[in-house]
This record gives sequence, structure tokens and C-alpha cells, in this order.
Amino acid sequence: MTLRRILGIDPGSRQTGIGLIETDGQRTQHIFSTCLRLGDGALPERLGVIFTEIVTVIRTYQPDEMAIENVFVSNNAASALKLGQARGAAICAGITSGLPVAEYSAKEVKLATVGKGGADKAQVQHMVKILLGLQGRLQADAADALAIALCHAHTSHLQRRINNA
Amino acid sequence: MTLRRILGIDPGSRQTGIGLIETDGQRTQHIFSTCLRLGDGALPERLGVIFTEIVTVIRTYQPDEMAIENVFVSNNAASALKLGQARGAAICAGITSGLPVAEYSAKEVKLATVGKGGADKAQVQHMVKILLGLQGRLQADAADALAIALCHAHTSHLQRRINNA
Repeated sequence: MTLRRILGIDPGSRQTGIGLIETDGQRTQHIFSTCLRLGDGALPERLGVIFTEIVTVIRTYQPDEMAIENVFVSNNAASALKLGQARGAAICAGITSGLPVAEYSAKEVKLATVGKGGADKAQVQHMVKILLGLQGRLQADAADALAIALCHAHTSHLQRRINNA
Repeated sequence: MTLRRILGIDPGSRQTGIGLIETDGQRTQHIFSTCLRLGDGALPERLGVIFTEIVTVIRTYQPDEMAIENVFVSNNAASALKLGQARGAAICAGITSGLPVAEYSAKEVKLATVGKGGADKAQVQHMVKILLGLQGRLQADAADALAIALCHAHTSHLQRRINNA
């Protein structure tokens, strides 16, 4: 059975979650997760940190695919712009490292992990820990990034089975 | 007198303007300008093109500094997100190539080129051509990118003179 490493990213201009899992289509394990705290410095420097840190994680752990949340934007244009910049930096890190990049909505991520599109953050965190057999505390943004990676593992696995049917 | 090469970027998810000028603080000349037409493909690929093309321009022409428009966002959050992603890709290209990245508002760019914060696009294009001694047609996004570079040249030159006073 082929092992696939999936990098999940939960982007933000203040904090960016990074989560990496490995799956053979049946069993999935946690490889690495962290939360980048980007501080209050100048925006270009913060975007540079997002890009560089993700490229470093890719070089270190050699994932095969990347998945990122396709955000729903409310009517706050200023927040949307900030989030867009962080997403742009993260997506560039994946694409320029040669990874295919998939996008999932928050609802798809919740459905894939908890089974309910309206699940709250605590339920997602709880299920991520159960699905990956993790003990102890898990930082919220890192949990979200792992949830996105799990969503991609489940969805693309299903997609592959459908495609092969 | 020190020659400085300044890269100006007018980012957009459909079209991104790139303009490069060289200045000794008194005389300024056009080195290169273009408009990336990003088409209708998947967003990650388009962001990858913005990043890669800007990195290629930086490697080819070796600018010393980069300047980008600090957009004013209206109340359209979806547009702000798209624009943010394109800005994020462009800023990462500059920062990861080791360039300092400065940001200017549209008003500052218009003031520095036309002398009026409320100038229209055609006036900016006209003044960019005069200031750089360019003949013939100049693509609109390329003109905007050159205007941002000119704004940085004027503003940072003034800043340097003030700092040295």
C-alpha cells in the first residue's frame, strides 16, 4: 500500500498552523505539527516567515501533497485582505516546492473529521486527537492544520477509489 | 552618486504589473516593465506564476529594493481576499530574495507622480511616460507598477536627505 504524506495549513497573519500526517489509506499517523506565532512586526517580514517556515517543513519532511482551508469571507474586507496575504504566502511555499495544493471549505473539514458540518472548534480538536491517537494538549491552530490534512486524506482517498471504480 | 534599482509591483489575481527603474537620486530611467496575464486557471497555479516570475525578474535585473501598493479595501471582502493572495505571493518573492519591501497607498503614488492625490489612472500613465522619457503605448498595469517604483524612488530619496540633514 502506498504511503502518502499530507501537509495541512491553517493560514493567518498572526498565527499559522502547520500539520503533517502520513496515511496508507487505512491507517493515519501524526508526523509533525506546530503553530507559527508571527508577532506584531512588519507585514512583509511576517509573510516571509510563513513562506520560509513552510518551505523548511516541506524540505525536512518531504510531503507529497498540501491542503489548505478555502476560507469563507464575511463582510470584513480588511480581515479578508490580511488573511488573503497569509494564504498567498502559504500557497506559494507549496506550489514552488512542487506540491499539488488542494483547497477545502471549513464545512468540508468539519464533515470529514467530526461528521457534522456545523461542529465547533473543540469537537474538531477532540476528533483530531482521537483519529491520530494523540495524548496531551494540542495547540488550536496546529489541530486545525491537522484537520485539514485529515480532510484531504479522506476526501482524496475516496476520490481515488471513485476514480478507480 | 549611488545607482539604485527599484522594483515596483501592482499586484492582482488576474493581472500583475511589474516595473523596474534605476535612479541616481536625480535622473531616473526605465529598465524593464511588463504585465503578467494570469488567466483563469486554478488559484494556486496563478499565485505560483506571480511568485516565480517576480523572482526571475529579481534574479535577472538585480534590483536593490521593492515597492508595492498598500491597497485600500472597499467593503467587498471576496475581492479583498483575492487581492490579498496576489499581494502575499508578490511580497514573498521580494522578501525571500532578500529585498527590503516598502508599501505606499494609491494616494501617495499619485502625489509622487502627478502631484495630486486625486489624479486619475490616465494622468498617472501620462506622467510615468514623461518622467521616464518613454515613447509609445504603455500597458496600464505596467505603468502603475512603474509609478509605484517612482514613488519609492522619490519618497525614499527625500527620506534619505531628511535623515542625513
